[in-house]
Amino acid sequence: MDINELLLKVKAGEISVDEAEKYLKYKPYDDIDFAKLDTHRKLRQGFAEVVFCEGKSDGRLTEIYKKIYEENGEVLGTRASRRQYEAVSSVIPDIIYDEESRILMIEKEDKKHIGKVTVCTAGTADIPVASEAALTASFLGANVEKIYDVGVSGIHRLLDRTEDMQDSNCVIAVAGMEGALASVVGGLVSCPVIAVPTSIGYGANMGGVAALLAMINSCANGIATVNIDNGYGAGYMAAIINRQSCK
Amino acid sequence: MDINELLLKVKAGEISVDEAEKYLKYKPYDDIDFAKLDTHRKLRQGFAEVVFCEGKSDGRLTEIYKKIYEENGEVLGTRASRRQYEAVSSVIPDIIYDEESRILMIEKEDKKHIGKVTVCTAGTADIPVASEAALTASFLGANVEKIYDVGVSGIHRLLDRTEDMQDSNCVIAVAGMEGALASVVGGLVSCPVIAVPTSIGYGANMGGVAALLAMINSCANGIATVNIDNGYGAGYMAAIINRQSCK
Amino acid sequence: MDINELLLKVKAGEISVDEAEKYLKYKPYDDIDFAKLDTHRKLRQGFAEVVFCEGKSDGRLTEIYKKIYEENGEVLGTRASRRQYEAVSSVIPDIIYDEESRILMIEKEDKKHIGKVTVCTAGTADIPVASEAALTASFLGANVEKIYDVGVSGIHRLLDRTEDMQDSNCVIAVAGMEGALASVVGGLVSCPVIAVPTSIGYGANMGGVAALLAMINSCANGIATVNIDNGYGAGYMAAIINRQSCK
Amino acid sequence: MDINELLLKVKAGEISVDEAEKYLKYKPYDDIDFAKLDTHRKLRQGFAEVVFCEGKSDGRLTEIYKKIYEENGEVLGTRASRRQYEAVSSVIPDIIYDEESRILMIEKEDKKHIGKVTVCTAGTADIPVASEAALTASFLGANVEKIYDVGVSGIHRLLDRTEDMQDSNCVIAVAGMEGALASVVGGLVSCPVIAVPTSIGYGANMGGVAALLAMINSCANGIATVNIDNGYGAGYMAAIINRQSCK
Amino acid sequence: MDINELLLKVKAGEISVDEAEKYLKYKPYDDIDFAKLDTHRKLRQGFAEVVFCEGKSDGRLTEIYKKIYEENGEVLGTRASRRQYEAVSSVIPDIIYDEESRILMIEKEDKKHIGKVTVCTAGTADIPVASEAALTASFLGANVEKIYDVGVSGIHRLLDRTEDMQDSNCVIAVAGMEGALASVVGGLVSCPVIAVPTSIGYGANMGGVAALLAMINSCANGIATVNIDNGYGAGYMAAIINRQSCK
Amino acid sequence: MDINELLLKVKAGEISVDEAEKYLKYKPYDDIDFAKLDTHRKLRQGFAEVVFCEGKSDGRLTEIYKKIYEENGEVLGTRASRRQYEAVSSVIPDIIYDEESRILMIEKEDKKHIGKVTVCTAGTADIPVASEAALTASFLGANVEKIYDVGVSGIHRLLDRTEDMQDSNCVIAVAGMEGALASVVGGLVSCPVIAVPTSIGYGANMGGVAALLAMINSCANGIATVNIDNGYGAGYMAAIINRQSCK
Amino acid sequence: MDINELLLKVKAGEISVDEAEKYLKYKPYDDIDFAKLDTHRKLRQGFAEVVFCEGKSDGRLTEIYKKIYEENGEVLGTRASRRQYEAVSSVIPDIIYDEESRILMIEKEDKKHIGKVTVCTAGTADIPVASEAALTASFLGANVEKIYDVGVSGIHRLLDRTEDMQDSNCVIAVAGMEGALASVVGGLVSCPVIAVPTSIGYGANMGGVAALLAMINSCANGIATVNIDNGYGAGYMAAIINRQSCK
Amino acid sequence: MDINELLLKVKAGEISVDEAEKYLKYKPYDDIDFAKLDTHRKLRQGFAEVVFCEGKSDGRLTEIYKKIYEENGEVLGTRASRRQYEAVSSVIPDIIYDEESRILMIEKEDKKHIGKVTVCTAGTADIPVASEAALTASFLGANVEKIYDVGVSGIHRLLDRTEDMQDSNCVIAVAGMEGALASVVGGLVSCPVIAVPTSIGYGANMGGVAALLAMINSCANGIATVNIDNGYGAGYMAAIINRQSCK
Repeated sequence: MDINELLLKVKAGEISVDEAEKYLKYKPYDDIDFAKLDTHRKLRQGFAEVVFCEGKSDGRLTEIYKKIYEENGEVLGTRASRRQYEAVSSVIPDIIYDEESRILMIEKEDKKHIGKVTVCTAGTADIPVASEAALTASFLGANVEKIYDVGVSGIHRLLDRTEDMQDSNCVIAVAGMEGALASVVGGLVSCPVIAVPTSIGYGANMGGVAALLAMINSCANGIATVNIDNGYGAGYMAAIINRQSCK
Repeated sequence: MDINELLLKVKAGEISVDEAEKYLKYKPYDDIDFAKLDTHRKLRQGFAEVVFCEGKSDGRLTEIYKKIYEENGEVLGTRASRRQYEAVSSVIPDIIYDEESRILMIEKEDKKHIGKVTVCTAGTADIPVASEAALTASFLGANVEKIYDVGVSGIHRLLDRTEDMQDSNCVIAVAGMEGALASVVGGLVSCPVIAVPTSIGYGANMGGVAALLAMINSCANGIATVNIDNGYGAGYMAAIINRQSCK
Repeated sequence: MDINELLLKVKAGEISVDEAEKYLKYKPYDDIDFAKLDTHRKLRQGFAEVVFCEGKSDGRLTEIYKKIYEENGEVLGTRASRRQYEAVSSVIPDIIYDEESRILMIEKEDKKHIGKVTVCTAGTADIPVASEAALTASFLGANVEKIYDVGVSGIHRLLDRTEDMQDSNCVIAVAGMEGALASVVGGLVSCPVIAVPTSIGYGANMGGVAALLAMINSCANGIATVNIDNGYGAGYMAAIINRQSCK
Repeated sequence: MDINELLLKVKAGEISVDEAEKYLKYKPYDDIDFAKLDTHRKLRQGFAEVVFCEGKSDGRLTEIYKKIYEENGEVLGTRASRRQYEAVSSVIPDIIYDEESRILMIEKEDKKHIGKVTVCTAGTADIPVASEAALTASFLGANVEKIYDVGVSGIHRLLDRTEDMQDSNCVIAVAGMEGALASVVGGLVSCPVIAVPTSIGYGANMGGVAALLAMINSCANGIATVNIDNGYGAGYMAAIINRQSCK
Repeated sequence: MDINELLLKVKAGEISVDEAEKYLKYKPYDDIDFAKLDTHRKLRQGFAEVVFCEGKSDGRLTEIYKKIYEENGEVLGTRASRRQYEAVSSVIPDIIYDEESRILMIEKEDKKHIGKVTVCTAGTADIPVASEAALTASFLGANVEKIYDVGVSGIHRLLDRTEDMQDSNCVIAVAGMEGALASVVGGLVSCPVIAVPTSIGYGANMGGVAALLAMINSCANGIATVNIDNGYGAGYMAAIINRQSCK
Repeated sequence: MDINELLLKVKAGEISVDEAEKYLKYKPYDDIDFAKLDTHRKLRQGFAEVVFCEGKSDGRLTEIYKKIYEENGEVLGTRASRRQYEAVSSVIPDIIYDEESRILMIEKEDKKHIGKVTVCTAGTADIPVASEAALTASFLGANVEKIYDVGVSGIHRLLDRTEDMQDSNCVIAVAGMEGALASVVGGLVSCPVIAVPTSIGYGANMGGVAALLAMINSCANGIATVNIDNGYGAGYMAAIINRQSCK
Repeated sequence: MDINELLLKVKAGEISVDEAEKYLKYKPYDDIDFAKLDTHRKLRQGFAEVVFCEGKSDGRLTEIYKKIYEENGEVLGTRASRRQYEAVSSVIPDIIYDEESRILMIEKEDKKHIGKVTVCTAGTADIPVASEAALTASFLGANVEKIYDVGVSGIHRLLDRTEDMQDSNCVIAVAGMEGALASVVGGLVSCPVIAVPTSIGYGANMGGVAALLAMINSCANGIATVNIDNGYGAGYMAAIINRQSCK
Repeated sequence: MDINELLLKVKAGEISVDEAEKYLKYKPYDDIDFAKLDTHRKLRQGFAEVVFCEGKSDGRLTEIYKKIYEENGEVLGTRASRRQYEAVSSVIPDIIYDEESRILMIEKEDKKHIGKVTVCTAGTADIPVASEAALTASFLGANVEKIYDVGVSGIHRLLDRTEDMQDSNCVIAVAGMEGALASVVGGLVSCPVIAVPTSIGYGANMGGVAALLAMINSCANGIATVNIDNGYGAGYMAAIINRQSCK
């Protein structure tokens, strides 16, 4: 931000008024007509922009992937369809599509993974959301361990894995129905827990609102919650907590 | 209901037409102007009518208590105020008022308690609702054990009492906030679990709706739910399950 | 749990430290990679795990059915599709599929049914949910009687069957729309009533929430409620109440 | 409305242009600064304006009562407080205040009551709302019969009064909690049923919304619903149905 | 109910005990296995049972139509699909299907229509619900007038038809979106108004709940509301009000 | 409205009673059987009626378009499908269909655009709703500027365009998810801001209700909100504010 | 913002680097420890900051009023209590408190009012909210006309005032219960309508949500809505629309 | 957990069977009759149990504070009343009560604070919740910086403090109304953001649900949300993230 330094240079004639003006007004985004790619984000937040694929036309999506790939050498996208995968793979042949999590990505080969994030689920039906979280955290540089199908109705399955959870920098608890997993995990570990309600269930689960309310009202400490089915958001949050914990 | 028998007697002249008509039309309730006491209920359901005190005037409440006490030698009332206690104690001096549960009752001295109902709570703030459940179940003839403050955020407190819960005929799980206790208990015992959501909590607990939704969506088997703060309803349900289990 | 006994044996050298450790740490579930089958459940709760089929891939479902069938000689699954039936029948040819209730099961031939559970519905549209309840309770060992289409708008149909309901160990009341059936049944019988709201109706029924709220707020005694359309949950609850009532 | 007639008179000079203009533009309401009393209503709807007292200052309320009383020789007001009663009685000494229903009214002495409207309640706590309905219907000219405390949890009390309900021109069913009374009554009578949900209950009754939803979703025919605790609205509706039935 | 008379005959031997018992226990419904047709309803309520077609299999529906047609010489069914029409027409060739309202019916030829029910709608999209109401009221014997597309955003269209509405025995006001039509109509007529919220609209209309709430909270007198899109319920209610008004 | 003038003419015999009557009763709408086109609207509100295409049959829609086109030389319709476009283009070959906004319109060639309305969106997924707003405002005579994809998670993109927004007569802020754009824009400009919540998002966005609530609760001044996804409503509102600002 | 000009001056030495830096970094707010008064707002939005009094301590409020009064010579505050009025009047003796609207303000004497804003209400109970709107719009420079108690249940009262509304630059429609007033007004005028739902009503009005939903779903054009009981917000919006219309 | 080691000692006779059994069954909580203090928590989670004061009787609360103070030399309690403060201060004279945040605590004198947590609020009314967060985080060892009253309606106030936020290990964003602050902050910093919705606002804020939904649906990355008004939960979460970031 060094405005002082800049102004001194202007005064000294080391930098022209035009250049200074451009600098001060610099638009840190890339305007590709229908979208304004936030190219400044990597600097500001440490990670490049992640693409939310759902609802984007094949043409626009392909253009966005190409742009980000060229700038960063890798791209992460969420909620992609198989058709979008096929469209994007025409310009980035090595792009990888994970059907279960609907992640569409290409990653730098030499990525170093640090720390540890643990992702656990209550049931097998929660796995797609958990996978989105796991792949996101991994893409953003975290080592990830998965502990699936350890819901509270058979709590010995969860207790059996307590130690695995306890040596993590962050645990992601993914659960639908009554979402009780988050509270039990919250009471067992000392690191932050990111709770992800899922829309799994029926009737009065209200598309995941029941689990969301349960997690928001958790009686345990060290829990915060993201949106229903938002595996990506939990993975991102866990990754930055993990990154800070490894400084 | 023996209509056949009655008709045979009518035909045989053993019973007059008037008497038969009266019997067939008999109103099995006691009309005391402003209320219709369901005196038939003891026959039909095994327990006399229980009084919901809230909102009843002192005069009306006293009259109802007197009537039921005369007929049954005992009365159970819920959600009574201290003022109502004082009013009723003017005609039934031995009536007992439990401040915490707001139960106002007088019980037969020689009551025999059978079986076992266990009442557990997530926190100490849930105790008033739990007490209503415990006193109701006890009044209706069950032995009652209480396990309070065993919420899931410190799950070892609950696991430590598993055996106590496992040899019950029914467990009542009372919890506010995220209501996760019911699911964990449901996974630990083989008897029916009656879940009671409480209004304990704040913000997005929505007066107990969050806990209610959690319990209704429980992933565990053998759980059914009653209204928010309805300790009485849970105690009644547990008492009849316990009674049947001791036949 | 006999820890004392185990420790005495360890001290006496009758059991090796390794075996004891294994026993104490024993994971009472079967980890088949994507799921952790709760094989301990039969011991703990008296019934083997029931499979929720919806959302499981054909391959995974078939593997789970095979595993449970091998261990228990029978399997019960709910919310199965015809396609899943066809997939599973390739490895368990005698598996039976009930289209209306979407139950997919194979039962031991010599099963003894005890006691009596009655399942009643308000309308004909509630029958699929009622069937799920009835088949579940029957699979879990209860004699089941069905009384369908006795909704309160023509209450003589219900009153006509009162005696049939009164000699049950548990009545399951299945109703959509305003769900009034549960309250009326609750006032007629002395055994526990499990209320099942259904999503039948339209407009302000809110997918069954109207019926759920009605049942939760029932003015009758001895009623507890399960999730919308959760015939299975009601059948399970009724079966354990019935089992205890026949001890 | 005779515009033709009016215009003919204008043409014939029988009525001046000014008078005609005044007639055509005539404001059929009485503008008393802070309110526009709908004096035209009696002509248009057959009954004079009814006063909703809640929230009106003593001064304004007194002025409104005085105005209407002068024009009609009677006034009906709802949701009045004792203090408002005292204020109004300073100008209309014979005004009557019914504490339970909070009705504040003075009625013509020679009023003739016709037909029959029956008001029934599920419990004793619903009586205030029922009284508002009963007094309104009576003020508007209907004979009113009351059948209180006949909720569905002891359905024999209701069935015992079926004939009393069947010879009415309209039945008002007042109930809180699960509101099942309306559906059962709806199935027993052939006249229209006006359902009034009340806020009686607690927890998931949501201030009467549970009963409202139940009534709106009723499986019975010939039922329509008014707002929660709106005894007045039900009494008005019943009165006009009764009036039309006696033509 | 003449129980006295019956008993006297039993005593006198004019009627056998068996016959009397059968009479007293007489099931006034027709049990066709999967359904209990309420054949008693015509006696009790003045109209035969109306069929809710949605969700009934072709086979069952056909059987029900046949049964009711044989007994009454006419049938009315709602929410039928074209496929159901084709199925039923195989046994009742003259059955008529109205695509817009989804009514499937056959009516007695010599039906006499009395009085007047007016059905008005806010927009053209509300017409299907209005048609269901109109055809129902007509089938149940009312003369019906339709005033469509008179929503309040161009209120002159509605005011222009005021007189047409004022000489009705009942007005049905059908509206989606903000449902304001009901209140305006309620202020213009002296007969009862049945308000029907529709699911027409989008966004915060919440499937018709916005209109339902508006109608329930109407500031006008003489309005009661039925379920969202429940044209049938409104038509039935209007028909019995109309019938009573023509006595 | 000149009633005085009219009456004077009647008196003077300059206008016949019949003509005067007709004028006074004149129906300012065009009754084409199934609809009442509000032809008076242009006079009353300054713009001709706009067609809501969704749910209208091809035949009816075509007739309506033809009628309005003949009277006004242009038509604007919203929420049209491609099929409807094809139907209407058979009678108005030059009709234009914008796939993204689903606008179906034909505009006068010589239309003069005045003032300035700015439409901004939080993301690219909000563009269809924004386009509906932009095309509507333009059709109704406003110059329109679009600033898309300037959501608050990268606020420099928005701040960079502040001046563009500040010299508008009205800004339309279109956003889904948490809808924060409206508040930030509201704090940056001095002209009125019309907030349009969109249904973009998932989980707890509740179909746009989350954004709607955010906008309704905005802490900024000079903001008012329209229905979820109601680009048309915002465009109309902005157009009349813009028109008034250019007087 | 003239960055270019500033930089030129820096280069030319006409302005020092320090002054330029200060200018560029200038904090356009006044940090009084517990609050950051937005002193820049008048420049940015044309009106000084308005104080939301509710919940502010007497001491803090007095300090804020003093600060703003010193800078602007006038202050407007909303939702003030009588006690707050007394506190503030100790430092600004001429401050005026309007009990009904809870406005606490002191205004410049020579204020010129322009244009016309009309505020109308459905009932008398809506007047406090309407007064807040009227006083706000007036404080911000608009001529204000009030038309109260013109609800749709007696629509002639509203139609009678149509012309008064039609020559406004903006109409504010204030209504509780079903909120229908906004739609009817919206259909009668050509200027923008700001709809204000109020919490007036009871039962299913849900504290004003029913009216809010009605207004958001209005079928009329040219309507936008503010928060429940937010008279201030509507007055502000109307004032800026009025100001622009008088340019 | 060293079960192996323990068993070896048992075998070797170094530890008696009784001692081993006691160890294995050890109850890591302190049962003081009405509560089960989780004394094990410090070991398991790194911080001693925090007391939720609301609803606890003076006697019980005093006993709990005494117990925890004796064991840890400090206690933190939330939502305490002044009366509770007075009660507890009778046994812990040095206890400190912060009226605004309702925190009741006594802290070790030599506590070392590490890292940095920033707490920001949208308005001054959010300060009590923010104070609860700040005091909690500080008690749990974090350096805390406060940036209050930087809501998005005057966004320059927030941008001015960006650098202060950027060098934190965690930012807590506290906001009511539309809760937009969290999203804007989320876009400005690279550390985790904990969003706290508050109940500040009125009308459609629904007691904070509007802000909660906004935060849960935030379009920014690295945000997770806690319960409405749950400053404590946010402070705890921030403290553990901060602690991990300083390892």
